[in-house]
Amino acid sequence: MARKISESTIRRLSLYLRFLEEFEERGIETLSSEELAGRGSTTAAQVRKDLSLFGSFGKRGLGYSVQELSATLRRLLGLDRPWRVALVGAGRIGSALFAYDDFRRRGFRIVSVLDSDPGKIGTQWGDVRIQDEARLEQVLAEEKVDIVILAVPGDAAQHVVERVVSSGVRAVLNFAPTKLHVPGQVALRDVNMSMELEALSFALAADDGPGA
Amino acid sequence: MARKISESTIRRLSLYLRFLEEFEERGIETLSSEELAGRGSTTAAQVRKDLSLFGSFGKRGLGYSVQELSATLRRLLGLDRPWRVALVGAGRIGSALFAYDDFRRRGFRIVSVLDSDPGKIGTQWGDVRIQDEARLEQVLAEEKVDIVILAVPGDAAQHVVERVVSSGVRAVLNFAPTKLHVPGQVALRDVNMSMELEALSFALAADDGPGA
Repeated sequence: MARKISESTIRRLSLYLRFLEEFEERGIETLSSEELAGRGSTTAAQVRKDLSLFGSFGKRGLGYSVQELSATLRRLLGLDRPWRVALVGAGRIGSALFAYDDFRRRGFRIVSVLDSDPGKIGTQWGDVRIQDEARLEQVLAEEKVDIVILAVPGDAAQHVVERVVSSGVRAVLNFAPTKLHVPGQVALRDVNMSMELEALSFALAADDGPGA
Repeated sequence: MARKISESTIRRLSLYLRFLEEFEERGIETLSSEELAGRGSTTAAQVRKDLSLFGSFGKRGLGYSVQELSATLRRLLGLDRPWRVALVGAGRIGSALFAYDDFRRRGFRIVSVLDSDPGKIGTQWGDVRIQDEARLEQVLAEEKVDIVILAVPGDAAQHVVERVVSSGVRAVLNFAPTKLHVPGQVALRDVNMSMELEALSFALAADDGPGA
């Protein structure tokens, strides 16, 4: 079933969960699809359609149970268990990701950091010691890594991801500014910060018109 | 016209441009929609459909001119001019973004960095001196900022973005882990790194099945 759920649906599920958690904190027990839609940038019909993909929630006239729905979304998003994450690349982006509290809060634990720079190998980040990227395959196996975050230079990324995939890891979050090729059974997400800025410059350029 | 172009189309245009630049470097002068599609994760029909939105390119049997098409895409994506960017938040993520070479290469120049931490205000990052976030409105005006990158904590982000919007800035790239609300005429992109990881844990959890 998972393969048929679009990326934008998954993104909305993540957003719904965040809103539900805010409602939970405020002690609210039920809410309507309108309320859930109102916080996001979507419609009540879209909320109902998204949630109906995963079974029947909510009772007509009563709305959704905040607790039940957030537990279901956590389970669907795989947030009901911890995940072991390895970070490849201990540069500035890697260091920012390592310190990113929200990962830990969501159950994503960075258990290994690897780099190829001899000046970094062996140094300590919190309770993690940076390991030699040459030992990537062994580290991924020893640490039972579920997810790899790639924060290496663009020209190194394809080679590294092939080693990651051949080690049996099935999920990769790529920060290298390049398009990676992985087999179909591997889940890959790209965070390309220049492309995000380009979506903004596209909007600004279109507003200004040609030659502005 | 810009308003009708979907986010996923814009993302593909950015990808096409990257492939075209690789072809340019290798001295290749023309290429087919099949070749362009082959490098991405799309089809030749999709390439032709995307490009036809912006006029008529390519000649039957001859393919697209690499130079002409990349120049057009650069213009469409607003990459034929420099953009002045302010970074609000000089923490770890801010520091990684400031050092991100690919921004500069694409014409996105970080001209101002602001933070509210007295220990950071007045310190120097390269040729930029970190300014007091209290002076946000003045700095955005003085520096003629086009785009703001928000790398502040989640609970501060909505207040900061309202000040940015009221200063007349029309494009915001948000790294704060929260959903921001901005008027319709403001272009907003979110980079939520936890949500990217959740898309991966969703895929892994779905593969494993319930209770795995």
